[in-house]
Amino acid sequence: MHRDEADIRHLVSDFLTASRAGQTDRLLSMLADDVVFLTVGNPPMTKADFEMASRAQAAAGAVIDASSDLKEVRVLGEWAYARSQLTVSITKPDGKTMQRAGDVLTIFCKVDGRWLFARDANLLVPDDSITGGR
Amino acid sequence: MHRDEADIRHLVSDFLTASRAGQTDRLLSMLADDVVFLTVGNPPMTKADFEMASRAQAAAGAVIDASSDLKEVRVLGEWAYARSQLTVSITKPDGKTMQRAGDVLTIFCKVDGRWLFARDANLLVPDDSITGGR
Repeated sequence: MHRDEADIRHLVSDFLTASRAGQTDRLLSMLADDVVFLTVGNPPMTKADFEMASRAQAAAGAVIDASSDLKEVRVLGEWAYARSQLTVSITKPDGKTMQRAGDVLTIFCKVDGRWLFARDANLLVPDDSITGGR
Repeated sequence: MHRDEADIRHLVSDFLTASRAGQTDRLLSMLADDVVFLTVGNPPMTKADFEMASRAQAAAGAVIDASSDLKEVRVLGEWAYARSQLTVSITKPDGKTMQRAGDVLTIFCKVDGRWLFARDANLLVPDDSITGGR
């Protein structure tokens, strides 16, 4: 595997680990300053929007457990894109769990030798709505 | 404007025109052979899947009228990406119209000097459901 592809796979894996642990600062360090997140039914989200949402989620005690199945990673010099299938489970403090699944198209850029998230289109929709009480 | 950016803007515009006219062959000529379309709630769509859906739509007499507001186009050598807001209105032979709107993240590749759609993540969801009778 190409070194850059391995680095991008590690970045995605580290992002999911930091997300699970609610580590907003670590998540922010993996994002380009002009990152844009596209999600279904919401306006495009900037880095500041992401930070606010991430801190609110951590403050609310919600745990986000996501796994990503990377279908392809293509490196284009200092840029790259990846296509993945993401499964996310969000558990609220009351034990209620929400499952979501969908495809993701991500563009990465290399800044000072480090790969960062640059653009991310996340097609997740609820697949199990709320499965409470576990 | 950079020549490649202008070419990509023309490609997107031509694609919407061909889509409105139900010209499946012309649409197919604008797609990379390994194109992948990601849409909400569906599995990834290949070029063959796209062809089948486009011919079925044309055979059913549905008219797809879309307008794209390109928010950014960035050329990365023989690759490029664009982020846009898409508004689509699908009119069926009985006059019923369905409106959809959402963000799109697209990756283009240059093949033999021509820009083609390579990957497309389309976050459209119904915004007006069905507004019949016009």
